[in-house]
This record gives sequence, structure tokens and C-alpha cells, in this order.
Amino acid sequence: MQEIIKAIKAANKILIVTHTDPDGDAIGCMIAVYLALKDIGKDAYMYCKDSVPEIYKFLPKADKVSSELKENEHFDLVIAVDCGDEKRVGDHFVLRELAKTIVNIDHHPDNSNFGDINYIETISSVAEMIFKLLKKMKVKIEKDIATCLYVGIMTDTGNFRYDYTTAETLDIAASLTRAGAKISSIAMSVYETRTFSSIKILGAAMYRLERSESGNVAWTVLPKQLMDSLGAKSEDLTGLVDHIRSIKGVDVAILFREEEDGIKVNFRSKFKVNVSEIAKTLGGGGHIRASGAILQGDLESVKEKVLAEVFKVLK
Amino acid sequence: MQEIIKAIKAANKILIVTHTDPDGDAIGCMIAVYLALKDIGKDAYMYCKDSVPEIYKFLPKADKVSSELKENEHFDLVIAVDCGDEKRVGDHFVLRELAKTIVNIDHHPDNSNFGDINYIETISSVAEMIFKLLKKMKVKIEKDIATCLYVGIMTDTGNFRYDYTTAETLDIAASLTRAGAKISSIAMSVYETRTFSSIKILGAAMYRLERSESGNVAWTVLPKQLMDSLGAKSEDLTGLVDHIRSIKGVDVAILFREEEDGIKVNFRSKFKVNVSEIAKTLGGGGHIRASGAILQGDLESVKEKVLAEVFKVLK
Repeated sequence: MQEIIKAIKAANKILIVTHTDPDGDAIGCMIAVYLALKDIGKDAYMYCKDSVPEIYKFLPKADKVSSELKENEHFDLVIAVDCGDEKRVGDHFVLRELAKTIVNIDHHPDNSNFGDINYIETISSVAEMIFKLLKKMKVKIEKDIATCLYVGIMTDTGNFRYDYTTAETLDIAASLTRAGAKISSIAMSVYETRTFSSIKILGAAMYRLERSESGNVAWTVLPKQLMDSLGAKSEDLTGLVDHIRSIKGVDVAILFREEEDGIKVNFRSKFKVNVSEIAKTLGGGGHIRASGAILQGDLESVKEKVLAEVFKVLK
Repeated sequence: MQEIIKAIKAANKILIVTHTDPDGDAIGCMIAVYLALKDIGKDAYMYCKDSVPEIYKFLPKADKVSSELKENEHFDLVIAVDCGDEKRVGDHFVLRELAKTIVNIDHHPDNSNFGDINYIETISSVAEMIFKLLKKMKVKIEKDIATCLYVGIMTDTGNFRYDYTTAETLDIAASLTRAGAKISSIAMSVYETRTFSSIKILGAAMYRLERSESGNVAWTVLPKQLMDSLGAKSEDLTGLVDHIRSIKGVDVAILFREEEDGIKVNFRSKFKVNVSEIAKTLGGGGHIRASGAILQGDLESVKEKVLAEVFKVLK
């Protein structure tokens, strides 16, 4: 952390980046760092290849997140948040071309340490790490920063439900609440402003749900045609696979979705199975309870292949 | 609190009661008090008219909750938790016949103060109050007590999402976690034990979702035949109408379901509409944000009639 603080002090023009298909932790942390840097007089910018999802647009300064960079633009420092790998910022991204110093702040256990300074902790959310960093920097955590960090913690812990949620997570959430984050209105903004098409696709996905004979594996398959016919976008699928996991007796939940660049497969597990291992076997990665991979082929054959892998592990 | 502690000290045979149709806070608090009383050597009993719901049976000593009392049995003290009114314990219940001293610990703002000692606070959950009481009593909050109280807080705050969730709520949750409550496994036990048919019917309901032109009213219709074909029971529909309300722009959410005794109509509203008034017009009742009615007729004509009522109010 001290190294990061030194690097920030030495820099003026700073770019904060996060991963494509951004979630609440990615957007929340990016904006929190942005606000903190602005507070201490830095010339800060935010970049995310994909635009801010609708449900996070209520966050302060969400409109300052850019999905384009000027050609040949150069920064004193790049800070990447919530990126396990440089490629997560975008396929053809070379951070090195943007700045001499790269700071990598992340909580993925398989982080590739792509930064010059790497601050990696295996905890619930990057927001917890940013909270500690800002404390160390003696930046005042005012209401807007608190709101962004609360969103990061809330979404990455599945609203205080996942494994990595600790007493310290709750302590930090309490601090953020005292600093002005409004728990119920934030929860309402994130969880009760679903799009009509996200509910329709949830319906289709659950209606099409299948499960193994013993009921310990459940999955659903979403062909591109179906998603198009319901007007469903990628962000409309958030949380869908968690619904599958919430069924009694299900150990492994899987969502198959057909996208432009292949079949995206999302895994969730309950108690027993390490789905990060399964994802790795298939060329993907992630966490013990939540992982994913992208496979090539038609839906049916990918499904067969993936299920075979899962059943192998369950045996 | 001091009076309660005194009353407990003076008593030996103590009965703890809670309300019918018990929720997580009711069961969690009842067992937490039971464990604490046992710890300090009291002869403690638990009574609830209805049996412990399936999802709370993982709680320690849940099997000690009795739904019957011996005739003419007498106690030194009765402690009622989470009961706004004596009648909530059961229609024909007279606590006075069971003991000379009644302690009433509750968080409903309209509590009738039916106890000899009333400890009423308008906060998120009774579990928070019991936590403070046990601290004052200097009872060690060990793992089992912590688990019960965590369930109370978690369920009564809608998993840390409702209005009354405060920084202190999170502080107490953190303490309980440090005392041994396992956040993710508790959340999984309570929230991730849905039945396969409840997920299928959720899917069907959402896939069939309709909405008004401006999107402020959304509804779904569940014919009996559909529910039967998915093996869905009435309890599988819990929370379904809340999903409809969670859509952005929806002010009124409605679920129509065809049952033996008529068409059941459930209403939810977000900010603006008092759905209790709408339900009353249709012969039903409820709260401002959640209400219901049962109407006779076929699905289509009931739907037309109800929607006409709703649009009248929205105009």
C-alpha cells in the first residue's frame, strides 16, 4: 500500500481502468478511487471498455466513465481495479503503452501480477481493499465515496451472503453507512431496478431449467435467438445463475449462453465443489464458488462436454 | 432491561413463546433466549403454536420447540418475543394463566404493552434487542446463540436491505460472526433451499409477464393447469410478486393465480400507490405496499376488472 501511495503522490495525470462487462465492485471501486484522487487534486480519468450498466448509473460521476481513449494519450500512472489479468481490461489492451507505472489492485486469487505494483488480497471485494487504502492515504471517506464502496462490497458479497463475507466486511460496511451510504436506497437502486427484459429472460431461463437425475447439478441453456427475441442484453443475465444455485440439493449450477464470441459458461457451487478447477480444465478461471469459461462449438456439444467434466468431479 | 434481568434471576421455570406462522426473527430469538437461560441454569421451555418452518430446522435445539402445552402447566415467568399483541401467540391464548409475570420483548411500533415488563424498541429485529440484553446479562454469546441471533437479524432486515438496517445492525452482525455465526452457510440454509418446482413456476410466471403501456403496472397470470403441470404448490409462489415489483418503473405489481376457491390476487407497490385501498375495493385487505383479495369468475374477466381498478387509482 505504501508503494501505491508513493506512486500516486508522484503522479498527476492518472487513469483508472477496470474490466469489461463491469460489475458493481468494478464500477464502484473505479469511481471511489476517481473521487479520492480528485479530492487530493489529481487529474483523474476513468476508462472501461463497456459502458456502465443501467443499475449503476445512479452512482456519482458514473457519467465520467469513458469507453474510449484518445489515440496516443499518455498518463503518469494507470491504476487497474478488479482485473485478474491485463486482458480483462480489453482484448488488445497494452497498459504499458499508456503509462510507465501500472498499479494492480485486485482480489482474484489467480491474479497474474501484471502491475509494477501489485496489491492483491483474497477477500470479498476490491472495495474492502480500496477502503483500507484510502484510510491509509488519509482521504476523507465522504458520502459519495462511501456509496461507491458500499455498492462494491454489497454486490461482490451477493449482498453479504457469499463465503468471503467476514466480520471485517461487516465492520467496513458499518463504517461506510456511518459515512453516509444509505443501505436501503442503495439496495433498492441495485436490486429493484431490473429491466423488463431481464425479468423475461430470467423467466425463460428458469422455465427451461434442467437437472441431473439426483438433482445435484442444474443448468439452463440460452440460445442467442431466444435472448434476441426477448431483447435481453448480457447485463440482463446478472444473478441468473445464482437463482439456479438457490435450489435445494443443487451443488453445481450452470448457465450456458450463446454469444458472438462463443458459448459462455458460468458456474456456481454451494458447499462441496471447487468450480474454479472445473473452469480451469475448460480454459477459464474464477473462484471456488463462482467461475466461468468461454468455449467454442454449438450449444449442444458444449453442454455435453461441460456436463461430462462436472460429473467427473462429482464422482 | 434491568427489570427483565431481575425477573429472570427470580424465576426458575421459564417459558419462552413467540407468534404463530413464525419467521426467522421469532424462531431465532426464542431459541437464543432458551440457550441463554439454559446456560445460566434455568429450567427453560419453548412454545410456538405452529411448527418450525423447514428452512429454520437447521438451528440448534429447533427440535425442542413445542407446539403443545400440558394442561394447567404453570411457569414462574413467560417471555414473549416478537409479538406485537398477546393474540399473536395464538387466538385463545391467555399468558396470564401461565405465569404471574409476563415479559414482552418486541420491535413492532404498535405493540400493545401486554407484559408486566415491556421492552419495546422500533429497530430492525428483536434479535438486536436480545443481543443487547444478553450482553447486559453477561451471558456468553457462543456459536449457537450467535447463529440464532444472526438468523433473526438477517431475515428481518431482508438480508440487510430494508429501511431499518443501521450501522449498529451491521456492528452486531459483525460481533455475531466473530462469536461463530457462519454467514454464508446460514444464508445458504435459509435462502438457498428453494424447491425445483418453485423455480420452474417462477420461470413460467416471469416468462408470461405483461405490463401496461407506460410500464408502471406489471402482472402475470397463473392458470391452475400450469401450476399443476409444474407440480407447484401454493408455498412455491412465495416472493414471486416481489420479483415483479423489482422491475424498474413498476409502481404496482400483480399476481393472479387460479385456485380452488377463486382467483387469488396479490398486489405489491413500490413508492406511490396504496394497494391496501385497491384490495379493499375488491373485498380484500392488507398493507400499503402489500395486499391481496380473492375474486370469483374466470381468470380473464377477473384480470380485466382488477386492472381497471388499478388504472383508476393511477389516473
